[in-house]
Amino acid sequence: MLHAEQTIHADIHADVAVIGGGVVGHCIAWEARRSGRSVALIDDAPGQGASWAAAGMLAPVSELHYQEEDLLELMLEASGRWPAFAADLARAGAPDPGYLTTPTLAVGADAGDRRALMDLRSVQQANGLQVEPLTVREARARESLLSPAISCALEIAADHQVDPRKLVASLRELLSAHEPGAGSMVDGATGGFAVEDRAASLLWADGHVAGVKLARGGTILARETIVANGLHAASLEGLPEGLHLPLRPVYGDILRLAVPRHLRPLVTSTVRGLVHGVPVYLVPRQDGTVVIGATQREDGLSAGEGAAGAGAKSHAAVSAGGVYQLLRDAQVLVPAVSELELLESTARARPATPDNAPLLGRVPGIHGLIIATGFFRHGVLLAPAAAAICADLMDGQEDRRWEAMNPTRFSRTHPQKESV
Amino acid sequence: MLHAEQTIHADIHADVAVIGGGVVGHCIAWEARRSGRSVALIDDAPGQGASWAAAGMLAPVSELHYQEEDLLELMLEASGRWPAFAADLARAGAPDPGYLTTPTLAVGADAGDRRALMDLRSVQQANGLQVEPLTVREARARESLLSPAISCALEIAADHQVDPRKLVASLRELLSAHEPGAGSMVDGATGGFAVEDRAASLLWADGHVAGVKLARGGTILARETIVANGLHAASLEGLPEGLHLPLRPVYGDILRLAVPRHLRPLVTSTVRGLVHGVPVYLVPRQDGTVVIGATQREDGLSAGEGAAGAGAKSHAAVSAGGVYQLLRDAQVLVPAVSELELLESTARARPATPDNAPLLGRVPGIHGLIIATGFFRHGVLLAPAAAAICADLMDGQEDRRWEAMNPTRFSRTHPQKESV
Repeated sequence: MLHAEQTIHADIHADVAVIGGGVVGHCIAWEARRSGRSVALIDDAPGQGASWAAAGMLAPVSELHYQEEDLLELMLEASGRWPAFAADLARAGAPDPGYLTTPTLAVGADAGDRRALMDLRSVQQANGLQVEPLTVREARARESLLSPAISCALEIAADHQVDPRKLVASLRELLSAHEPGAGSMVDGATGGFAVEDRAASLLWADGHVAGVKLARGGTILARETIVANGLHAASLEGLPEGLHLPLRPVYGDILRLAVPRHLRPLVTSTVRGLVHGVPVYLVPRQDGTVVIGATQREDGLSAGEGAAGAGAKSHAAVSAGGVYQLLRDAQVLVPAVSELELLESTARARPATPDNAPLLGRVPGIHGLIIATGFFRHGVLLAPAAAAICADLMDGQEDRRWEAMNPTRFSRTHPQKESV
Repeated sequence: MLHAEQTIHADIHADVAVIGGGVVGHCIAWEARRSGRSVALIDDAPGQGASWAAAGMLAPVSELHYQEEDLLELMLEASGRWPAFAADLARAGAPDPGYLTTPTLAVGADAGDRRALMDLRSVQQANGLQVEPLTVREARARESLLSPAISCALEIAADHQVDPRKLVASLRELLSAHEPGAGSMVDGATGGFAVEDRAASLLWADGHVAGVKLARGGTILARETIVANGLHAASLEGLPEGLHLPLRPVYGDILRLAVPRHLRPLVTSTVRGLVHGVPVYLVPRQDGTVVIGATQREDGLSAGEGAAGAGAKSHAAVSAGGVYQLLRDAQVLVPAVSELELLESTARARPATPDNAPLLGRVPGIHGLIIATGFFRHGVLLAPAAAAICADLMDGQEDRRWEAMNPTRFSRTHPQKESV
């Protein structure tokens, strides 16, 4: 791994510079790498942002929301790519990213939750998605620790999971396996490597984006620069004039718990519940842990002002009320949650956009630049598709299906060259 | 600080060997040190046991339980020592241990809680303790964030607090300030120092305890050995034959939270509540954090079998149900708790005895040995008194008031020399 200290005063040449080392950035980097391009992945805290918190549900069906049909198409495309993507990772010798085709059970707590889930099912069915109602007895035959007091259960076979922390580690290892000697990149050799630094600014030359200036000095010269650093994308220096990336943080609290041996498996399916109108999910991992999440807060609490200090800026404050709500609602669905060991409480901000769809594509008229951010709740699911779309764009192929995701759609004026 | 590696094959001489570096062990060590004795304090994870979790309430009045009058006398003795002890620490130049004379409010949630607290008040008053009922309006005039729905509030002016983590650090610095060069102790120089190793066994010579064998090799030769390692005391090798130390772990979950600036201070008093019969407390620190605790579990959960692995043996598994209960009940008393930032969830085991009183004193007939463990919920409060009692014992003075705490009271036979 090449550390930033080594790059000071040295220009590094790569075919592709990827800004941001979360799940999305890593998938893009690997896709570019295996298309034969040399890649530099820039992040001073790789995998520590939203990817660190993500539960990793690959859930186009349960994540369907009303009036997000454009997004659904991308989610289904992404979901369809996952099996091959995971197989390719394995074939390339990557460490296990925890990809599992665990089914999902959608569960309601009360009559209102049942109505909401059945209404959603109508929309899901209208979109050709499979959602099969089970009786409570059937659901409990599969998941014996489900509460008998639930109001409904629906099976969603197509919604699976991956472990985002393992996925980042897996992709990182693949990238570093291709890593050349530290010196060779300077002369433009092919390879993939990670730069542990922050991108300070886009680098412009002759009216196009020509790479990245690093925060600690040094530059990455690249034919293509891909902005995949989540919320930080909006504050990147040197974005095209007039390009408005309306990213806002939506915070989420997430818990990791260990299941005592006598309660294993707590659940075999991912359980996505609606408890008196509030969503909660339990994702079982193969190592005997479960992930419980689903809070969404637009307020960042005391982050940065708490007694604990700001910490890394990608870290958000864990909400006591959020943790309480997660434990309360998870227990309504699976009472034995109270007997688990709480291993970790984490919070992160996800980069949301006004229409909940990502900002993904080229900025018309600007060469050498691709934007890939704003994945909100769907970054892990969408990452392989986003990576394929970026690879296509670099090959000069633009798929009209993804025009609705264009990163300029919230910009009032046509973005111009470099902003001053 | 002398690390164990340096002690292998070297006998270290000290007047006093203290086994166990929690609050109790550190107080004993400092008391011995300032009485002019050289002291070796032995712990491979100092301050990381029950002391790491403790909230640090110095609460003889609210901690009064029915039929524990013997213990009450020791608690009042200890409480009376705290102001001078804290002043002595400051005079000695110790870092601030967070000693605060914050008053305590006892608060009930419902009518049953009110009855229970008023009944307890009768016992407290019968023992000469001051507990003054306030109207809910008066209580809320002092603590504006208290719920208006509480059933009662009582002021307990005598119950204060200290920060156990700071206290250990403070005492540790005092001890190391007295630390001699690493070599000089070997020849019996006076001083105080910390040995980062585990006590494997008591060392016997001529029918009396003559020090400690260390786990990684080497010995501490000491005129007096004080066993203050909490739960681990019962499994110490080489205890006198027939000495039964009936210590059992009682687990507790405890939360540390940051109060956002706009809610500070969340409370100015320590709030000890009874919520539908279940105790919960909120202890405000000067740094804008609060400590919330009170769970008591006799079951250790999946500790050691969880996916997270055992970790250090002094660390216990945090109970999801415990954390839920703490957040739920704290919100009943102070609804704004939901708006706090959860910094830390911790669990530890406290060393409990059948009568909830410590095992404190000499073993009759055995020279060179003092037992000081089993402090259960009261270790922090009792530590300075325990230290003074140990110092008196080493001076040959035995206070008959503490006979009821004698460590042999659960042993069927009169303890004999070394066990085989």
